[in-house]
Amino acid sequence: MKKQGILTIISGFSGVGKGTIVSRLLEKHPQDYCLSISATTRAPREGEADGVNYFFVSKSDFETMIREDRLLEYAQYVNNYYGTPKDFVLEKLGQGIHVILEIEMQGAKKIKEQYPETLMLFVAPPKAQDLKERLIGRGTESSEQISSRLARAAEEAVYMKDYEYIVVNDEVERAVDEIHQIITNEQDRVVRRGDFIRELSQELKELN
Amino acid sequence: MKKQGILTIISGFSGVGKGTIVSRLLEKHPQDYCLSISATTRAPREGEADGVNYFFVSKSDFETMIREDRLLEYAQYVNNYYGTPKDFVLEKLGQGIHVILEIEMQGAKKIKEQYPETLMLFVAPPKAQDLKERLIGRGTESSEQISSRLARAAEEAVYMKDYEYIVVNDEVERAVDEIHQIITNEQDRVVRRGDFIRELSQELKELN
Repeated sequence: MKKQGILTIISGFSGVGKGTIVSRLLEKHPQDYCLSISATTRAPREGEADGVNYFFVSKSDFETMIREDRLLEYAQYVNNYYGTPKDFVLEKLGQGIHVILEIEMQGAKKIKEQYPETLMLFVAPPKAQDLKERLIGRGTESSEQISSRLARAAEEAVYMKDYEYIVVNDEVERAVDEIHQIITNEQDRVVRRGDFIRELSQELKELN
Repeated sequence: MKKQGILTIISGFSGVGKGTIVSRLLEKHPQDYCLSISATTRAPREGEADGVNYFFVSKSDFETMIREDRLLEYAQYVNNYYGTPKDFVLEKLGQGIHVILEIEMQGAKKIKEQYPETLMLFVAPPKAQDLKERLIGRGTESSEQISSRLARAAEEAVYMKDYEYIVVNDEVERAVDEIHQIITNEQDRVVRRGDFIRELSQELKELN
């Protein structure tokens, strides 16, 4: 019996390094993972391809998707819609491929409500000081911007408890391997093994 | 911050090979695991040592342990008490050592009620037929005994859903490694990382 893939949300404070972790995860296990592709009504930018970076759709098509409940979540920014198409995700999961969604906490919550089998991982720094040093080390932001990111992290910390695992990004390769193991093992969680349990129970009855 | 060990229950149908799996787990990672030692009022047998095979205690001492709520669970068989002393388990967990309890499903349920952080693993055969073949292959039981074990397995199958993970014993070393990974990763489950979350949240507040 082929195991289903797992829809996995990876969130974390801005600057914690989740982008790097997700890239490495896909590089190390290209057969096992894919990224969720969002649908959007905004125009493609230079170099962006439909079905790769985004699914580019018209406003009326997007609104049809909303009405027909074909999005796991969606939001509107600056007059454009962005959303997660359900069909793409379910097709990949059915092929045993894990779908990774790197989103923030509000979106994560909406998806978990729509699709409770979603696995929610939160990437945290070992210490708050490490996050500050990472943000400074990037050298791309002013000290006001860094302060504002840290202030937001302090606010967002209350959402950590809504996740299922806290993965500490002490060392990228270690964190990537831990995430891979967590997702693999989660396939054997009882909630995801209903079919196996039913089948084995039935076989045991028939043996006698 | 040192992570606590996890009290881990390993159950499974008679003949599924959980004894072998537990022995290999302890052999491969002697620093990380220990077996829970039961207290009993029965007399030591030839070669059994107090604090190794069992804690041998008097009936009145055992009844004091019951009254003082110092047992995670206990039961009475043939006029003797058997139980799981809480102190021993909590001391090991505090040292970061995982305590393994190989018990049947009724006892497992009682322990989970007393100590909800308990991790419950169920070892299953890939197919019912594999269980039958293993029981026949052991060559130690009559065909009636085998039938009765299989009938019991068919009844016990309803309890599989009360566990947290189903580990398929398709190959001992693979199953042992999976169990080791599950237990290790479970240390990063949000329910077990309350201290880390509180500490990090506090640090983030103080940074600003």
